[in-house]
Amino acid sequence: MIFFMSSETNGLILVFTGNGKGKTTAALGMALRAWGQGMKVLMIQFIKGGWKYGELKAAEQLGPGFEMRQMGEGFVKDVAGEGLETHLVTAQKALAEARRDVGGAGYDMIILDEINYAVHYELVELADVLELIRSKPPGLHLVLTGRNAAPEVMELADLVTEMKEIKYPYASGVKARKGIEY
Amino acid sequence: MIFFMSSETNGLILVFTGNGKGKTTAALGMALRAWGQGMKVLMIQFIKGGWKYGELKAAEQLGPGFEMRQMGEGFVKDVAGEGLETHLVTAQKALAEARRDVGGAGYDMIILDEINYAVHYELVELADVLELIRSKPPGLHLVLTGRNAAPEVMELADLVTEMKEIKYPYASGVKARKGIEY
Repeated sequence: MIFFMSSETNGLILVFTGNGKGKTTAALGMALRAWGQGMKVLMIQFIKGGWKYGELKAAEQLGPGFEMRQMGEGFVKDVAGEGLETHLVTAQKALAEARRDVGGAGYDMIILDEINYAVHYELVELADVLELIRSKPPGLHLVLTGRNAAPEVMELADLVTEMKEIKYPYASGVKARKGIEY
Repeated sequence: MIFFMSSETNGLILVFTGNGKGKTTAALGMALRAWGQGMKVLMIQFIKGGWKYGELKAAEQLGPGFEMRQMGEGFVKDVAGEGLETHLVTAQKALAEARRDVGGAGYDMIILDEINYAVHYELVELADVLELIRSKPPGLHLVLTGRNAAPEVMELADLVTEMKEIKYPYASGVKARKGIEY
């Protein structure tokens, strides 16, 4: 934690939203950059099954300063229908852990992965997320990813980037690639 | 290189463009994911001074499988005017190295950071970049970042995401943050 001492007391609130690839990927890059600075990073999963082998293996190798916390393994296809209950449990569990860790002092950066999507599908309440953001200690960097970010969340953010899909390989029948998609 | 053996012979061509934050950051995340898969990653810098302490320190700690190659240190403010010559030398050197390494077999993923921007400012010729992309060995993943990606480059790509600036902190006077910007 050599670089933890910092004159910068204001952590940023960053939002990566939009329908294109690169939201979680940019959060991973941001985590890597922070980790390189000696910061302690936590990434919490709000939608089950979104993380794949590549990033989990990387986090494991980066050690305790780079923690990716899954709320359950396996992929659940639909938020609607039979998958709903599983997704609700996952998102609520993620919210509870986010509350605890955002409120604590153990991390320099916390990434709430797919939280915007979870709000959009009413797996967590917008009011709870706004409260979570407002409760952020000054020094903590908070990153919120997922499509359909609520205007109220973007309003609280310092930086918002929309990842917009211009071209997507799967539309033309290219299958998922190791190291790219997982 | 445990995971180098792969049945997937088609590497992808990915483009991250647009005026928002997250292009190089997403490339970094992609590099981390690939590295986690045991792939060998090279990131080449086309615009001098774009990389900062956080990512360079991280790459250093990740070892030889994650190589970030700078073409010169220090920041050059303007592409126009007195900075032009320095930028031209940097970009041309980067192009030469990219040609060699894209043509070689040493890497599973090569990231040409800010190459789109370099083309836009005519630091490298579009025709050279198109030739470079077309010369890619089938198994290599090629990532091209930078705003103002040429339509011809996007045409050759499998995936294109536009990072669109919705809100940017520096506009409201927030200064660069350790672990976020550098």
